Amino acid sequence: MSQTEPPASTVSSWRHRLHEVIFEADTPAGKTFDVFLLLAIFASVVTVSLETVEELENHKPLFLRIEWCLTILFTIEYGMRLLCVRRPVRYATSFFGVVDLLAILPTYLSLLFTGAQSLAVIRALRFLRAFRIFKLARMLREASELRKAIWDSRGKIVVFLTTVVTVVTIAGPAMYLVESPEWNPGREVQSQFTSIPQAMYWAIVTMTTVGYGDVVPQTALGKLLSAALIMVGYSLIIVPTGFVSAELVGLKRAVSTQACPHCMSEGHDLDAKYCKRCGNKL
Amino acid sequence: MSQTEPPASTVSSWRHRLHEVIFEADTPAGKTFDVFLLLAIFASVVTVSLETVEELENHKPLFLRIEWCLTILFTIEYGMRLLCVRRPVRYATSFFGVVDLLAILPTYLSLLFTGAQSLAVIRALRFLRAFRIFKLARMLREASELRKAIWDSRGKIVVFLTTVVTVVTIAGPAMYLVESPEWNPGREVQSQFTSIPQAMYWAIVTMTTVGYGDVVPQTALGKLLSAALIMVGYSLIIVPTGFVSAELVGLKRAVSTQACPHCMSEGHDLDAKYCKRCGNKL
Amino acid sequence: MSQTEPPASTVSSWRHRLHEVIFEADTPAGKTFDVFLLLAIFASVVTVSLETVEELENHKPLFLRIEWCLTILFTIEYGMRLLCVRRPVRYATSFFGVVDLLAILPTYLSLLFTGAQSLAVIRALRFLRAFRIFKLARMLREASELRKAIWDSRGKIVVFLTTVVTVVTIAGPAMYLVESPEWNPGREVQSQFTSIPQAMYWAIVTMTTVGYGDVVPQTALGKLLSAALIMVGYSLIIVPTGFVSAELVGLKRAVSTQACPHCMSEGHDLDAKYCKRCGNKL
Amino acid sequence: MSQTEPPASTVSSWRHRLHEVIFEADTPAGKTFDVFLLLAIFASVVTVSLETVEELENHKPLFLRIEWCLTILFTIEYGMRLLCVRRPVRYATSFFGVVDLLAILPTYLSLLFTGAQSLAVIRALRFLRAFRIFKLARMLREASELRKAIWDSRGKIVVFLTTVVTVVTIAGPAMYLVESPEWNPGREVQSQFTSIPQAMYWAIVTMTTVGYGDVVPQTALGKLLSAALIMVGYSLIIVPTGFVSAELVGLKRAVSTQACPHCMSEGHDLDAKYCKRCGNKL
Repeated sequence: MSQTEPPASTVSSWRHRLHEVIFEADTPAGKTFDVFLLLAIFASVVTVSLETVEELENHKPLFLRIEWCLTILFTIEYGMRLLCVRRPVRYATSFFGVVDLLAILPTYLSLLFTGAQSLAVIRALRFLRAFRIFKLARMLREASELRKAIWDSRGKIVVFLTTVVTVVTIAGPAMYLVESPEWNPGREVQSQFTSIPQAMYWAIVTMTTVGYGDVVPQTALGKLLSAALIMVGYSLIIVPTGFVSAELVGLKRAVSTQACPHCMSEGHDLDAKYCKRCGNKL
Repeated sequence: MSQTEPPASTVSSWRHRLHEVIFEADTPAGKTFDVFLLLAIFASVVTVSLETVEELENHKPLFLRIEWCLTILFTIEYGMRLLCVRRPVRYATSFFGVVDLLAILPTYLSLLFTGAQSLAVIRALRFLRAFRIFKLARMLREASELRKAIWDSRGKIVVFLTTVVTVVTIAGPAMYLVESPEWNPGREVQSQFTSIPQAMYWAIVTMTTVGYGDVVPQTALGKLLSAALIMVGYSLIIVPTGFVSAELVGLKRAVSTQACPHCMSEGHDLDAKYCKRCGNKL
Repeated sequence: MSQTEPPASTVSSWRHRLHEVIFEADTPAGKTFDVFLLLAIFASVVTVSLETVEELENHKPLFLRIEWCLTILFTIEYGMRLLCVRRPVRYATSFFGVVDLLAILPTYLSLLFTGAQSLAVIRALRFLRAFRIFKLARMLREASELRKAIWDSRGKIVVFLTTVVTVVTIAGPAMYLVESPEWNPGREVQSQFTSIPQAMYWAIVTMTTVGYGDVVPQTALGKLLSAALIMVGYSLIIVPTGFVSAELVGLKRAVSTQACPHCMSEGHDLDAKYCKRCGNKL
Repeated sequence: MSQTEPPASTVSSWRHRLHEVIFEADTPAGKTFDVFLLLAIFASVVTVSLETVEELENHKPLFLRIEWCLTILFTIEYGMRLLCVRRPVRYATSFFGVVDLLAILPTYLSLLFTGAQSLAVIRALRFLRAFRIFKLARMLREASELRKAIWDSRGKIVVFLTTVVTVVTIAGPAMYLVESPEWNPGREVQSQFTSIPQAMYWAIVTMTTVGYGDVVPQTALGKLLSAALIMVGYSLIIVPTGFVSAELVGLKRAVSTQACPHCMSEGHDLDAKYCKRCGNKL
């Protein structure tokens, strides 16, 4: 997205204009293009999704036709992007360049191989462009505040995730052992903790309070351990919430770092023009 | 609810009084009316609910009688509302006007068509009037603070929801692919991710830690992806909690209610001696 | 617990002393009594619980013997409480007095009626005395801060609960309708939303992210509505967290309301002895 | 980890150097050792985990060979640790010393007894060393802030846990009674609340919003009670989140690091000019 705009003297004016429409969202034409692109991507995701619904089997020819139309549109868009950027190779090898290519390939490949069609779901990755909507809706400030709050808490999030992984690594094998047939010789029902990775999957699902219930303890000791893990997990998981809250409270309480030139007092609001202590101009 | 009170000179005094009782909650009569109306709506929702319970099948005639009584009461109320407002059409086409009509129609229609009865559940929409209780319980300040906190965070909530939708749009198809029979040729059990919309439904249920367990991954790769989505989802979902906390902390940080006597600006710190806008003494 | 201590002149000294031991936790004897009572209650709850475990059927005589011992102990304690308070009737009709009686009755009744035994679980109510542990562990300040934070947010919690109840009242009937056989004529599987109360139970389980999975939507429209309710519920439910956070942040930021007698500056810390602005004694 | 470094004069220099490499992470050699050790522990946990996966049965000889290699490595490490610390007995009886021994024993025991192999999962406890990664990644400050926030809230967490345990102790038996066959004579389906401990396990799973769904209420009264418990539980569980948030917000509210030159007291506000304890100029 950080393509530098080519100076008007080195490229023909229509390439310049095309670049402006496709890559920037500040002009009316650019905004219109972005809105239409997002709608097309959305339609494409919906079509690929509905194709997989068995109840709509008899509408499949319609879906296929829409998919082909959108694929051709996306191909033209991809071509135009290659055409109007100054460094096509750099775009083509960038993350979004690869995604744009992967989004159109499966439909063409489906002409050659059966089964390639199923790869059309890769197209969903194009939905990452949905973040452009912040630019359209003038929500860049909110988005960047959010990003900053998460970024500033990254150290604590790493500490938190390490703790979670450690607890999962210890709780998983423990539950596997406790629920294993060797520890419960007389039990008829088979353990749902069929392997340690399965037990770790259960530990993650449990600690985050998702609790599918596809794997549950069946022995008394297993249920006791499970209750303990739930309490530990719950105590752990409230911590990052607190962090992000604290970061965001801190962001909101930003005061000017400017000191009053007359009485040297600090802590003035960002919008203050006069010192609140001595009344002189800041 | 923002009906302007008609001046006493243009309407007969009983219409004026009726308007006061029905539409306002400040007079004792208005309060009594509101309490009775809320009780009647509550009774109506309970009756319609109990009618659907199979175990109470033999009490159905009783429920039907209560329903008819309440419907007649509501019809009278609807008529009175039309009668006492200055602009009946405007009320009839307002949100609450339409809801009030929809609440009584199904019972009358059930005389003409069988099956219309099932539409009686629309009556539950009348329960939206429950919010009037804040007025009765003098909790308007709390309600409006809450509304303000949510409203002020709307930008961040949009950013958050966009992120969730994007993650769901990408995780759903990915899981569908990973769990599909084409990727797992030898498996006997059928994939529970029968279509991409189903997979997206799973992604929402998982990311919000609801975790019904009606759709769960069965392959090793699927469980790994699932665990990853849970961790991503969990990290995402703590963010709006932090926002609302920060907003509410900000609300509580009291500023002086004193306005500057010179420029009338507000929002000065409690310890400010001089106006931060014009520099004059407070 | 607010029994006023009887003056030593009106009661014999042993009754006075007994009162001190049983009702107060400040003396060493009172503390020892409290610890033993909590242990006895805990043992009693464990015994009644284990009695219901089928695997331990053959230990039942042992459990019964323990239960009888504890019942006799509790009876003696109840008698002593009646004996040493100045107004026995007031104690006997107080909440804890009734609970203390209900805890011992079922065991005696089981001699007369079979089945009375199952009422022994009422004994669990005695566990409410566990809150006395705060007094023992010198955590009264924390407990009262917590109570204050919840109490101060009560207005907002009422607003929040009203909103939840309203959403449940509207979402429940809507799901019942959408999943009903009338709306899905060709479907083989039976709707799990068998009645509106059942649908409301589902709505509560879903909105609070508990998500048992015993009732789940099966139609496409039902799943869409469900996903919408989850998002609404999630947005709603983060709000009270924010409230309590904000209240607690406010509690921590308490500053002294005392102004400096020399320079009149405010905002001194609660533990400040000298003015932080002019250095004079506060 | 708090082994005091032995003075160079009392131990041979190679033992001193070995101690530095194994027990400290400040030198390059110590860091390299820590990274390799963590990788070896990780590989060991993965191997033991994969051994239990039925699908990988035919790779078992490979896993066994890796396990033996790692066990021998860990044995050498254990020996070196014993060799280089000044007080080997104190290390051997410390928590990590016991864990290090338990991690290698099962593999050797498996030569003597069949079944001892299953104890290899104890090795997962070694993963507790993962916390050393904070030292490597220079995240000690974040880790200690987190620890401080949790430690400072310990009083409130105890109050909270007592409340949860009390609610579980009362809700469990209540549900057991309500769902018991004695209270529901005509019901065909068997109660899933087979015993009071099971009912308590359900109460914990429900209150923390995990909601497996392996135990669910089936009667109308049971569902009502369940909905009530969910609401109570939800109200309770938001409280510790608020605590940790408030603690962390408090931590962020920086105070001056300047100590009073006269009384050495700390914690002065950033804008303080005079010591709040002794009144002297800062």
